[in-house]
Amino acid sequence: MCGVFGAYSPRPEPLLEDVYLGLYALQHRGQESAGVAWINGDGMAKTVKGMGLVHDALNQHELSQQETRVAIGHVRYSTAGGSLAANAQPLVATYARGPVGIAHNGNLTNGKAIAQYLESRGAIFQSTTDTEVIIHLMAHQAHKPPLEALIGALRRLVGAYSLAVLLEDRLVAARDPWGFRPLVLGKRGDVTYIASESCALDIVGAELIRDVEPGEIVVVDEKGIRSLRIPVEPKRHFGCAFEYVYFARPDSIIDGRSVYAVRKELGRLLAKGSPCPGANLVTGMPDSGTLAAMGYAEESSIAYEKAIVRNRYVGRTFIQPTQRVRDLGVRIKLNPVPHLMEGKDVVVVDDSIVRGTTAQRIVTLMRGCGARNVHLRIASPPVRFPCYYGIDTPVSEELAAARMDIEGLERQVGACSLAYLREEDLFEAIGRGRNDVCTACFSGHYLEGKEIDHDLDL
Amino acid sequence: MCGVFGAYSPRPEPLLEDVYLGLYALQHRGQESAGVAWINGDGMAKTVKGMGLVHDALNQHELSQQETRVAIGHVRYSTAGGSLAANAQPLVATYARGPVGIAHNGNLTNGKAIAQYLESRGAIFQSTTDTEVIIHLMAHQAHKPPLEALIGALRRLVGAYSLAVLLEDRLVAARDPWGFRPLVLGKRGDVTYIASESCALDIVGAELIRDVEPGEIVVVDEKGIRSLRIPVEPKRHFGCAFEYVYFARPDSIIDGRSVYAVRKELGRLLAKGSPCPGANLVTGMPDSGTLAAMGYAEESSIAYEKAIVRNRYVGRTFIQPTQRVRDLGVRIKLNPVPHLMEGKDVVVVDDSIVRGTTAQRIVTLMRGCGARNVHLRIASPPVRFPCYYGIDTPVSEELAAARMDIEGLERQVGACSLAYLREEDLFEAIGRGRNDVCTACFSGHYLEGKEIDHDLDL
Amino acid sequence: MCGVFGAYSPRPEPLLEDVYLGLYALQHRGQESAGVAWINGDGMAKTVKGMGLVHDALNQHELSQQETRVAIGHVRYSTAGGSLAANAQPLVATYARGPVGIAHNGNLTNGKAIAQYLESRGAIFQSTTDTEVIIHLMAHQAHKPPLEALIGALRRLVGAYSLAVLLEDRLVAARDPWGFRPLVLGKRGDVTYIASESCALDIVGAELIRDVEPGEIVVVDEKGIRSLRIPVEPKRHFGCAFEYVYFARPDSIIDGRSVYAVRKELGRLLAKGSPCPGANLVTGMPDSGTLAAMGYAEESSIAYEKAIVRNRYVGRTFIQPTQRVRDLGVRIKLNPVPHLMEGKDVVVVDDSIVRGTTAQRIVTLMRGCGARNVHLRIASPPVRFPCYYGIDTPVSEELAAARMDIEGLERQVGACSLAYLREEDLFEAIGRGRNDVCTACFSGHYLEGKEIDHDLDL
Amino acid sequence: MCGVFGAYSPRPEPLLEDVYLGLYALQHRGQESAGVAWINGDGMAKTVKGMGLVHDALNQHELSQQETRVAIGHVRYSTAGGSLAANAQPLVATYARGPVGIAHNGNLTNGKAIAQYLESRGAIFQSTTDTEVIIHLMAHQAHKPPLEALIGALRRLVGAYSLAVLLEDRLVAARDPWGFRPLVLGKRGDVTYIASESCALDIVGAELIRDVEPGEIVVVDEKGIRSLRIPVEPKRHFGCAFEYVYFARPDSIIDGRSVYAVRKELGRLLAKGSPCPGANLVTGMPDSGTLAAMGYAEESSIAYEKAIVRNRYVGRTFIQPTQRVRDLGVRIKLNPVPHLMEGKDVVVVDDSIVRGTTAQRIVTLMRGCGARNVHLRIASPPVRFPCYYGIDTPVSEELAAARMDIEGLERQVGACSLAYLREEDLFEAIGRGRNDVCTACFSGHYLEGKEIDHDLDL
Repeated sequence: MCGVFGAYSPRPEPLLEDVYLGLYALQHRGQESAGVAWINGDGMAKTVKGMGLVHDALNQHELSQQETRVAIGHVRYSTAGGSLAANAQPLVATYARGPVGIAHNGNLTNGKAIAQYLESRGAIFQSTTDTEVIIHLMAHQAHKPPLEALIGALRRLVGAYSLAVLLEDRLVAARDPWGFRPLVLGKRGDVTYIASESCALDIVGAELIRDVEPGEIVVVDEKGIRSLRIPVEPKRHFGCAFEYVYFARPDSIIDGRSVYAVRKELGRLLAKGSPCPGANLVTGMPDSGTLAAMGYAEESSIAYEKAIVRNRYVGRTFIQPTQRVRDLGVRIKLNPVPHLMEGKDVVVVDDSIVRGTTAQRIVTLMRGCGARNVHLRIASPPVRFPCYYGIDTPVSEELAAARMDIEGLERQVGACSLAYLREEDLFEAIGRGRNDVCTACFSGHYLEGKEIDHDLDL
Repeated sequence: MCGVFGAYSPRPEPLLEDVYLGLYALQHRGQESAGVAWINGDGMAKTVKGMGLVHDALNQHELSQQETRVAIGHVRYSTAGGSLAANAQPLVATYARGPVGIAHNGNLTNGKAIAQYLESRGAIFQSTTDTEVIIHLMAHQAHKPPLEALIGALRRLVGAYSLAVLLEDRLVAARDPWGFRPLVLGKRGDVTYIASESCALDIVGAELIRDVEPGEIVVVDEKGIRSLRIPVEPKRHFGCAFEYVYFARPDSIIDGRSVYAVRKELGRLLAKGSPCPGANLVTGMPDSGTLAAMGYAEESSIAYEKAIVRNRYVGRTFIQPTQRVRDLGVRIKLNPVPHLMEGKDVVVVDDSIVRGTTAQRIVTLMRGCGARNVHLRIASPPVRFPCYYGIDTPVSEELAAARMDIEGLERQVGACSLAYLREEDLFEAIGRGRNDVCTACFSGHYLEGKEIDHDLDL
Repeated sequence: MCGVFGAYSPRPEPLLEDVYLGLYALQHRGQESAGVAWINGDGMAKTVKGMGLVHDALNQHELSQQETRVAIGHVRYSTAGGSLAANAQPLVATYARGPVGIAHNGNLTNGKAIAQYLESRGAIFQSTTDTEVIIHLMAHQAHKPPLEALIGALRRLVGAYSLAVLLEDRLVAARDPWGFRPLVLGKRGDVTYIASESCALDIVGAELIRDVEPGEIVVVDEKGIRSLRIPVEPKRHFGCAFEYVYFARPDSIIDGRSVYAVRKELGRLLAKGSPCPGANLVTGMPDSGTLAAMGYAEESSIAYEKAIVRNRYVGRTFIQPTQRVRDLGVRIKLNPVPHLMEGKDVVVVDDSIVRGTTAQRIVTLMRGCGARNVHLRIASPPVRFPCYYGIDTPVSEELAAARMDIEGLERQVGACSLAYLREEDLFEAIGRGRNDVCTACFSGHYLEGKEIDHDLDL
Repeated sequence: MCGVFGAYSPRPEPLLEDVYLGLYALQHRGQESAGVAWINGDGMAKTVKGMGLVHDALNQHELSQQETRVAIGHVRYSTAGGSLAANAQPLVATYARGPVGIAHNGNLTNGKAIAQYLESRGAIFQSTTDTEVIIHLMAHQAHKPPLEALIGALRRLVGAYSLAVLLEDRLVAARDPWGFRPLVLGKRGDVTYIASESCALDIVGAELIRDVEPGEIVVVDEKGIRSLRIPVEPKRHFGCAFEYVYFARPDSIIDGRSVYAVRKELGRLLAKGSPCPGANLVTGMPDSGTLAAMGYAEESSIAYEKAIVRNRYVGRTFIQPTQRVRDLGVRIKLNPVPHLMEGKDVVVVDDSIVRGTTAQRIVTLMRGCGARNVHLRIASPPVRFPCYYGIDTPVSEELAAARMDIEGLERQVGACSLAYLREEDLFEAIGRGRNDVCTACFSGHYLEGKEIDHDLDL
């Protein structure tokens, strides 16, 4: 998971503040590092990157002093490449044809193969991110103009990439032919923006124009906005369901669907498929299960309560799990509201189960507060397979649903009952067919054969 | 606003971790500084304090290495005394009779008068906090045993104080005779705890025993728990309504009443008193208005939606209000969910209006997203007067409700309608009579005449 | 060891920069902490202190923004009080009669007795420095004007103190009746300065006027410069010999004698008393023995060489003595110049021997470089007793000269011969009689009986 | 100016501590950054680098935990490349044939030309240091074994380079065919070391074996030590005179000559060529002129005094030149010893004059202290031309000796007389002929024609 943002203006302005704000709105997509890159008055690419949250990694005041016509930014949650300062993005380099900067959300599945090929031709890699292979592919086509070199690079890539690219004085957006990760275009006056999610357009007061399409390259420069295609065979749409289920912000609109609306619908369909007739109240695991819980409550006409309080300093403050902390059975992150539990049948809705530890803990806490029965409802199908397209899921052995069946899981978390959303309900809530959604983490169906054959030769 | 915590065990254990956790659960009561104090193996008082959140101010690992039988802690949100490292608490000193440490929530109204009296007798003050006068009052009674000196000090104080005190090998809790601020007693095995709110007992797995009563001194030592009285005439109860309305955590129980239940009830009574018949949905200002909004929705049978998304990194990240940020009309903290607003009549519930700027901003943002009408409902009476008892309200000139009437405020925030909770509904929701609640910030009725006459002479 | 500095101007100017520079010139007297204090435009005392070197502890730029008429400063090398941020000076307090600030060089021998007396009268001590008792003594005389209260405090003190005091709008210098530590007065135009050493007057372009006399109080204010006496019986002069031998900077003039001249003379007298006829070259232990070595070489007509190179980053860089570092026999601080050693008889001069480890190491290194014979000459008498007057010497058991005789020491350090300066030569070089120099660390003769009886009663 | 160090052991040991110590002894050659690189147990190259002094940039404790058989290190004083963290060395990369690490002292004159050639072949440069071109030259010979690729790279380089290279499990030392910068080999048991100066061998207890010869490549691995030649025509020796005059430590031996001995000899020859008959004393500008001053004093039989005291905290503490600091005419770094100046004729010896500001300041200070006449003697010829071989001299316009003749300079610095060393005396002191010393900064004679023609084609 990462977030990208880009801005283009026909005249120099403090665009880096827009990028700073855009990244701030995309902070939920990556907290490990943040960075911006832009083209300076002298035509050189500049970049500032740092570890941690946008606020810690970047200095708003210094950024506000810069004027530029084109800028990009990135927030990173490490996937391929490990957690290193050297892997912070945007990646900026100057090659024989000038400066280039790239911010990348996604994960290439042929990144290593390309890197080996390039090393045999003299390339030296500085980072372990996939993104660097894109720049080296361009540098090895130094005889072509930069935009052609970029297109020549993209057509060799396999996997997930939503890119914001700085190319000379142009802003370029590109989305892989499968459309794994979201990418949108926006406008505010004559300033053009690209962003991973529409909530980042809202924060800069820009209007959502449309999604960048799978396989599309959008070039923004002084001549306006042009749309090109990545020259490969059209692919099946592999849009990620988890963006709707968990990752994206509820106020974003992805590929035309409101994330908020999808989440409530997931809850409603879950209530239809797995009702819980005698329950006294429905609550959501904060904050991931809240909207689905509200949908569940509406559909089932059971009262919705915000019955689990989340310490709002969690995330800023890390409590070490010392022996004493374990002994105290500490309610560090989550605390059930005591008087709501006493003698009640409670439905707890969460978006998904990964390792199962949080579910187990909350059931225990609720029983400790006097809940009579706790029913767990999950607003997505069981996650059984790792993601190779940009989401940092654990290996199968650590996925609770890959290790045991529903009864086993029920026993382990200590719930009276446990139910998952059906796959067809997921497609219905998202409003797309089974073949227009990536189901790899539920079904294990990854990119196959003809989807991935590419000729590397430069 | 501040939070205090204390722990006593019959045998040395890593109590400082309990204090660390307790402060973490009380973090909402003060983010400016945090500190702990304890009695060392050699009988000396030790203290560690720092600026910022508990996690930044204190080192959990180092604290976990210490074993002690008695410890206290404090989180501070500056009121009297200004924002200085020197004012961080607990305040610890060694005077002629040994070590003493104090953590104080509240604000004395005769602090300055006492300080002047003591200076004429040779005292030198190191900080500008009220708390230091308590220690100097004790030091000037060096002929008495420490506990008597403490009682001699408390009976000279006027105003709000909920104290956790370290006195030789004892833990002492004390609450002013008016009971302004909350203070509770808890137990886990044979460890005794005191805390500003019961949510801090939950986090260490302790059971809530009871509230410390107004005017009570609770002494915990190897002989057990003793209850003493501050030797002054009994006073009227001045329990702070704002603890229920805004400050306390919803999972706390204060003076016997669930904060969660009070907040939902405030919303229900608000819906009864100020309904909004044709509205399409009710939403709360996150996070302060959420529970009242849910109560309002239930009472009025209008759908509740979480229609305003709060950036969960607000608080960790501060966006400077540069000219560009203002120009962009930026939705930094709050973003309405676009598809919920389009053509709708929306009720927005908040807990209170202080300066009115947030209310104005959210109404503008909602209209910008297409809301047809926005109705503002406030789950407490208008705040017109400053608080002298420990809450950091602005002076009257900055209080919106002190500067204009409801129609004026309606116009300023741009709402279709604006309504406040009636005072009697506040008392009903809290479940106490008008004379058992401090209404100073609504009514301007402060402590008077016979309440405050004390003889200072030592 | 500490250094003090003060400045007074008839009109507000950026005096804090002068103090910053003065402290920088006195940095050799204390590297643990540094601080400044001054009277603000509003008549309040302000202070800024920090740990480490002047440059790290203080911010020159911020200090240069302040204008004031009176300011003091302090660099600290911990003696009494331990190494704590709370002990950094100047100590500043506001008591009933207004602000007072004190910077103190020296060590009181009745500090603890006074502190106990004051605690029984209600005083609370914040630090463990002697200096705080001076302020409390003043606060307990709140009925007197501040200057009288200061004099009333000073007459109760026993031990070493050279003070720079901030008193309302006055600058006050005071030196104890024994004159243990140096203190000088200087002038630049109509700005008056006080400083521990004259080198700190040089750095601000001020002229040395005279030494503050033992038992003198110098008051500088808008009326000019006044001289008062501490109202006690006159005492014998106890001026510290080690200021000349080691501590003071060579470009300082103390009690009328050039430190540079004294050091060379110590070397000359050492050569006369303990010659080394056949030696090929004389060198000094850098940097403490350099001047005495030059004097020794001149007197004995043996060539002087700078034959030991001191790594000039020592002090900034600390090498941990790991096992490998020990195995390598590492020449970290000091490296003999190889070609100067080969087959030579070398005289090494140092100012003193404390623990004897450095002497042992250098003799070993020189032999390793091929020196045939190494003769050690010490430009002061053997140090056998601890100092109670402000110098941080180890306890007797760690003093090499207290643990063994000269032959034993010769064997331990591995020198061919070892000789000390005779006591009478020390007096001759300083140019003062035996009764005008403190010889406690050589002879064990400390302050006695009638020197130290003071009545504490306030 | 930079310093390099390397160590090879037949078995894993904590060699990084040796490198840490070696760099510490070479700290005078570079204070901007420091770094180490080594081959890990898994055969991967690891590197740790940081800004500032060795002590700040590196963590001795962490380094002491590592065992390795081969390690290199670098201290950097920025020349080519600017002051950037990205330019810190050693530079480490993994290319198609495995890991390589390089520490480089010197400056290539064809670095930019090589970089452009490589970029046209797909190379992307990460830093602005010359050193990176060496690694890219190797990567573009990925078909050859690493050692051959290194030799193929070196033969294309023009300019100054003394290298410590990490190549698989080998340590390689290489010195350019002109021998601009020093490089020595040492041994301690069966551990082999390379270092910029012999003082870095002393610190690890190693013995100086010999200098690496101009054009030599020394390969150290499990087979022992092999000597190869860089396959270019032999060149004239361009050994840098300034290493002796100023840069190197006095306890180092460079190309067979003691730096200490050369410096004293420079002083003696200066006294012969430019005597100063009536002077009362000779002193050196600390610390650069000290040894030459001692030589001058010996030759002329005038007394040597350490008459200028250098504040030993200079370098650690930076005083900003504010208006007040300028007004005070502050003696920040240097202070003449007052009683030595009064009415005296003083000879001040310095190693060189660059901008002339220090000379002017010291003459003014001495006159202010009462010196009657000040004579300036410079122990090297006038510096009129910039250095392109690794020393950070200013451009000609800022070189005092390039802007005016001796009389003009005399007037500007305010000296009674000013004299430089004659060129032939410089050669005599160094003990090499005019054609075996680089005189570019005195004479402007740089590398020419046939010295620098190299074929780049790979």
